[in-house]
Amino acid sequence: MKINLNRMMDMLSEVNQITDEGEGVTRPAFSDFEDQAHGWFINKCKAHGLETYQDRFGNSFATIGPGEEKGLLIGSHLDTVNNGGEYDGALGVITALETVITLLENGVELSKPVTVVAFRAEEIGLIGSSVFSDLIDKSGNFAERMAGIGRTPEDVENAIGYKDFTDYLELHIEQGVYLENNALDIGIVNAIASMHQLNVTVFGEAGHAGTIGMRERDDAMMNASKLLVEFEKIVKSYGPPFVGTAGTLEVFPNSSNVIPGKVEFTVEVRGDDMDKLHAILDSFIEYAERDFKTNITKSIDKAPAHMSDGMIDAITAACEATDMKYELMMSGANHDANPLSRRMNAGMIFIPSKDGISHNPREFSSKEDIETGAAVMLEAVKRLLSK
Amino acid sequence: MKINLNRMMDMLSEVNQITDEGEGVTRPAFSDFEDQAHGWFINKCKAHGLETYQDRFGNSFATIGPGEEKGLLIGSHLDTVNNGGEYDGALGVITALETVITLLENGVELSKPVTVVAFRAEEIGLIGSSVFSDLIDKSGNFAERMAGIGRTPEDVENAIGYKDFTDYLELHIEQGVYLENNALDIGIVNAIASMHQLNVTVFGEAGHAGTIGMRERDDAMMNASKLLVEFEKIVKSYGPPFVGTAGTLEVFPNSSNVIPGKVEFTVEVRGDDMDKLHAILDSFIEYAERDFKTNITKSIDKAPAHMSDGMIDAITAACEATDMKYELMMSGANHDANPLSRRMNAGMIFIPSKDGISHNPREFSSKEDIETGAAVMLEAVKRLLSK
Repeated sequence: MKINLNRMMDMLSEVNQITDEGEGVTRPAFSDFEDQAHGWFINKCKAHGLETYQDRFGNSFATIGPGEEKGLLIGSHLDTVNNGGEYDGALGVITALETVITLLENGVELSKPVTVVAFRAEEIGLIGSSVFSDLIDKSGNFAERMAGIGRTPEDVENAIGYKDFTDYLELHIEQGVYLENNALDIGIVNAIASMHQLNVTVFGEAGHAGTIGMRERDDAMMNASKLLVEFEKIVKSYGPPFVGTAGTLEVFPNSSNVIPGKVEFTVEVRGDDMDKLHAILDSFIEYAERDFKTNITKSIDKAPAHMSDGMIDAITAACEATDMKYELMMSGANHDANPLSRRMNAGMIFIPSKDGISHNPREFSSKEDIETGAAVMLEAVKRLLSK
Repeated sequence: MKINLNRMMDMLSEVNQITDEGEGVTRPAFSDFEDQAHGWFINKCKAHGLETYQDRFGNSFATIGPGEEKGLLIGSHLDTVNNGGEYDGALGVITALETVITLLENGVELSKPVTVVAFRAEEIGLIGSSVFSDLIDKSGNFAERMAGIGRTPEDVENAIGYKDFTDYLELHIEQGVYLENNALDIGIVNAIASMHQLNVTVFGEAGHAGTIGMRERDDAMMNASKLLVEFEKIVKSYGPPFVGTAGTLEVFPNSSNVIPGKVEFTVEVRGDDMDKLHAILDSFIEYAERDFKTNITKSIDKAPAHMSDGMIDAITAACEATDMKYELMMSGANHDANPLSRRMNAGMIFIPSKDGISHNPREFSSKEDIETGAAVMLEAVKRLLSK
């Protein structure tokens, strides 16, 4: 029994023709393009004889096997960032679908149902999978926020579906260089990183760039630069897998002849140990508050998500059976497997990303690596079904 | 013979009622508000019996004295930045007008004409005074650029007026803290700083903030931070009056979970010595190009403008005669006196700015300092007339 690589690549190419204009693939969450991709998915599943279903939030499902038992869920998401790549999300859905088609074609008798899922809006905060897992934040102006994306609180209630499943397995590209640099075929995720984000405002005193001497001025951009250099130093001192990034930064008033009076930026740190993450942030905040006038607020503070031992064992066995080089690793990126892992056994299979490039039109994983990943997923699913 | 402080303050208050909505004063270059301020100026001058004239570019003039001789020009500009203060530009025009009204009231016999000028569009690059001095850049799509501000190349030709004048004197607020910190009444400008600007692009490699390790990543924002820390260090090593500022900075793609792939920023340095300024920039560029992937272009490279010895002497004598504490100083900001100084004897009188705040609704100079400045200007004009 073997997956059909050509069919997989064809399906991947088909779904990636659904994109907004511009470089790469653009199927933003809740856009027409995401809707169309889910329509394509439902039609493709029907054509292969799967039982399809869409919940009222817009997550799509396709099932084979006996309906009475609690089942196995496999898949990923179909939305992308703007000008993203062809693999992030879509490859996980296609691999899951190919796995199920292969089981069907080979007449494998199923002890329980296997369902392929395509979640909504992963790229803007794992929205679809969080709704499915009943982990969406319903506080504050919840109805208003849902109205903003064309949904109602009733739609969200209708889409809570995790209780019908015992296990979730997702294949994804690594989006990093660990597998490539270490010549590995497969990464078996043991944890999805905890992520902590700070919103930092550094103050200075705005003034004319020509008339205030270097000793008299308080330049917010220079203050921010020193904070960032120190931030990087602190994160690096903790070693792998800890990472820290200042992805956004804005200068006020942002005029070439005005000394910046204020700079706002975000820093986020990720890692697998909450205590160390808090220590990193505490060191940074202590440095910032000692030497600068700042206002720092924590905006995201998530605990790491641990993959289940049973899933890790099944994927490990699948790698051994298919003779693949693998390693356990942390996922620095967040995935639908995060909320799912809080409701059932969850696992993730990583395949190599060329140069670690992701969220980018140049995102690439080779056919060979895709075939390897699909083979491991098929093996792992067989093992999970025989449990 | 003494200037009338109340009349001056009333005139200043009247012209500052001409402003767009919002905090502070907003009379942008070429706006209706600037037009209205020039209309107010012409009417006020007429009411005091001055001979008024507006050139086709929109610069406004008001003259007293014999028409045949080459004259003395005094004034400043009436436009402001958005949400600017009440003093920058307007105070120079009002002081010049008050000086002329005082001469008229006291029946001072004039050997040559004295003209008050209100230039256009100082805040967006000394446009009006550059046109007047025939120093505007007429290369490339000049007609198109003029059409964009509702002018024609013929209007610009008509407005070349410097040949009728021998001297230009301008009073302005310091916009810095040098006078205040050193308890001085008057700054006599000896040079307007040379200003050099670089557009810097620093590259990195965009990537997922969670998946690329600290050792594997090339973060453009961290690169930019290190460049800016070094930039500040280099500028400071040259001491006063050299200043350097990174006023604008933009991060790409500017997403909290993406390692920045590119950062663009401007740096400008000002000082009174071209060789040292070039040395500062060369050190910075050398550092940048040695350790980082950058693209650096020079966008502005202006020579310093030297005020004339005769003017400096006249203002010095005026300070001595009125018993004021003064010092020679460089102007870090640019002024209409810059283009004028390339065509005639030019001089500038600075009065203190509270806390150096400028281009800001909180810009402030005390009545006492304004009175002092006007008294020094009146004295200096008398001396220039008797030459």
